[in-house]
Amino acid sequence: MSPVVSSASLADALKQTALDVNAELDRLLPVAEGPESRVQEAMRYSTLDGGKRLRPFLVMQSASLFNVAPSAAIRVACAIEMIHCYSLIHDDLPCMDDDDLRRGRPTCHRQFDEETALLAGDALQTRAFEVLAAAPTHPDPAVRCELVLDLAHAAGAAGMVGGQMVDLRAREFEMDVPAITRLQQMKTGRLIGFSCEAGAVLGKAPAQLRQALRNYAHDLGLAFQIADDLLDVEGDAAEVGKRVGKDADAGKATFVSLLGIDRARAQADMLADQAARHLDVFGEKADLLRATARFVVDRRN
Amino acid sequence: MSPVVSSASLADALKQTALDVNAELDRLLPVAEGPESRVQEAMRYSTLDGGKRLRPFLVMQSASLFNVAPSAAIRVACAIEMIHCYSLIHDDLPCMDDDDLRRGRPTCHRQFDEETALLAGDALQTRAFEVLAAAPTHPDPAVRCELVLDLAHAAGAAGMVGGQMVDLRAREFEMDVPAITRLQQMKTGRLIGFSCEAGAVLGKAPAQLRQALRNYAHDLGLAFQIADDLLDVEGDAAEVGKRVGKDADAGKATFVSLLGIDRARAQADMLADQAARHLDVFGEKADLLRATARFVVDRRN
Repeated sequence: MSPVVSSASLADALKQTALDVNAELDRLLPVAEGPESRVQEAMRYSTLDGGKRLRPFLVMQSASLFNVAPSAAIRVACAIEMIHCYSLIHDDLPCMDDDDLRRGRPTCHRQFDEETALLAGDALQTRAFEVLAAAPTHPDPAVRCELVLDLAHAAGAAGMVGGQMVDLRAREFEMDVPAITRLQQMKTGRLIGFSCEAGAVLGKAPAQLRQALRNYAHDLGLAFQIADDLLDVEGDAAEVGKRVGKDADAGKATFVSLLGIDRARAQADMLADQAARHLDVFGEKADLLRATARFVVDRRN
Repeated sequence: MSPVVSSASLADALKQTALDVNAELDRLLPVAEGPESRVQEAMRYSTLDGGKRLRPFLVMQSASLFNVAPSAAIRVACAIEMIHCYSLIHDDLPCMDDDDLRRGRPTCHRQFDEETALLAGDALQTRAFEVLAAAPTHPDPAVRCELVLDLAHAAGAAGMVGGQMVDLRAREFEMDVPAITRLQQMKTGRLIGFSCEAGAVLGKAPAQLRQALRNYAHDLGLAFQIADDLLDVEGDAAEVGKRVGKDADAGKATFVSLLGIDRARAQADMLADQAARHLDVFGEKADLLRATARFVVDRRN
C-alpha cells in the first residue's frame, strides 16, 4: 500500500480528534459537590488527557463518510472511549494485571485506591450507555437503541469481557493462532468493529457499506493486536507508556510467540494493506482510514 | 395502615414473580461453548435462584397498573435485577466489603475467583442495558431509550455508584440523618425509584401518575433501608443470608445508630404508611404495592 495521506496529515487529524474528544469528555463527565466527587474525579483522571484516541478517531472518520453531524458522532466517540477506559481501569486492578503505569501515569487504583478505581470503571460503563441513549446523540431513537445494543454486544460477555475471560484462562487451553485470533477478536476486535461501524449506524448507511467497514475493522483490529504484541517485545516502557515484556514474563502465547517477530510483522503488514482495500467503495473520502491502517502497524506506542 | 392484602397473598405474588424472573433470567443469560463460559457461569451463579426479587416485583406491579404486557415488563424486571446483582458482586469483593456470604451462599469471588467476579459484574451491567435497548422490551424505541437513560441515571455516579462512594468515605464526614438519607437515596433509593417508575415509562403514563409512583418509591426506599439497618443490628446471619453486625463493627453511622432502635422502627413504620398513601390515586389496583410497603419493614431477611 502506498500511503495516500501523509503520516503528518494523519497525525494532525488524530491530534485534532484527541482535542475534540477531550473537550467533549470534559463536558460529559462533570464533578458534583458531594463526597461522591471522588469517583467522578477518578473517572476524569482515567479518561481525560490520555491515549491515542484511536477508537474515537475511527468513529469520527466513519461518520464523516456518511455526512453525520460531528456533534452527534463525537458523543459516540466519547462513549466508546469511556468503555475502553473502564476496561483499562479494571484490567489494571491488582486482581487482574496489577499494573502501576498507564498512559505514562499511575494507574487509577494507584492514584486513588482500589475501591475508587472499581467504582470509577463501573460508572464509566454506565455513563457510556447513558450518553448513547440521550437525544443529542441522534434524532431517531431507533438509531440510539441500535448503538446501545451494538456497543453492549461488543463490550459484554460475548465480546470484550468474554475475551478478557479467555485471556485469563489462556494457559488452561492450547492457544494456537486460531485461538489467539478468536481471543483478540473478542477482547479488542469487537470494540474496534463498533467504532468503525458506528458511522454507518449514525448515517443509516446501506448494509453493503456497513459490511465494508466491518471487513476493514476486522483486519485493522488484528493488525493492531499483532503490532501490540510486537511492541510488548520490542518496545520501550517509557515510549509505550505502560509496562512491556508482560506477555513473555507471564509465559503467554501471543502472535509473536507463535509466529516469531518476522512473520508476525509480515502478517500485520498484510492485514493493514487488506484492511485498506476494503475501503475501495468509499473512494478518496476514506483516505484517512486507509492511512490509519498503516499507522496502527507502524506506531511506536 | 391496615393491610388491604393479606401477607400470604403478597408472599404468593412475590414467589410467582421470583419464579418468572428466574425463568426469564435463565433465557437472558445463556452460556457459550468457549473458555469465556466461566464468566457466564459466574453471571448466572450470582443472579439465578436468589434474593427476594423485590425490585423486579416493583417493576411487574407498577407495569400492571398501566396494563403493560408482562412479557415486556419481565425484561425490565430482569435488567434491574442484573444491575442489582452486579453491584452486589462488586460490593462483596475483597477491596470493598470483603464478604464471604451472600443470599446464604458463597459470594461470587469465593465461588469462582476475584477476576471472574469482577468481569461477571461488568458483563451483567452491560447485559442489563442490552436487554433494555432490544426490541422485545417495547415496540417504541423512544421508550427503550428512556429506560436506558433512567436506569443509567439511577445506577451511575450520580446514583447507586455515587452512593457507594459516599458510603466508603462516610467516616471522613459528619454523617447526620440528612447525610445518611442522601447517601441511601443514592445507594439504594434510585434503583427502587427506577423499578417503581418503570411501569409508568412502559405504559406511557401521565406525569402525575408517574410522580405518585416516584413519591411511593421515595418513602419505600427509605423504609427499606431503615429496616435493613435494623436487621443488621437485630437479625440473625442464617436467616438474613449475609453477615450481620457489619455496620457496628465498621463503626458506621446508620439510621439505627443515630436514632436508636425504637425511633428507627417508628420512622420505618411511618414511612411505610406514607408510601402506601401515595398510591390512593390507583385505587385497589395498587393493593399489592401497598402491602409491599408493609412487607419491607416487617421482613426478617
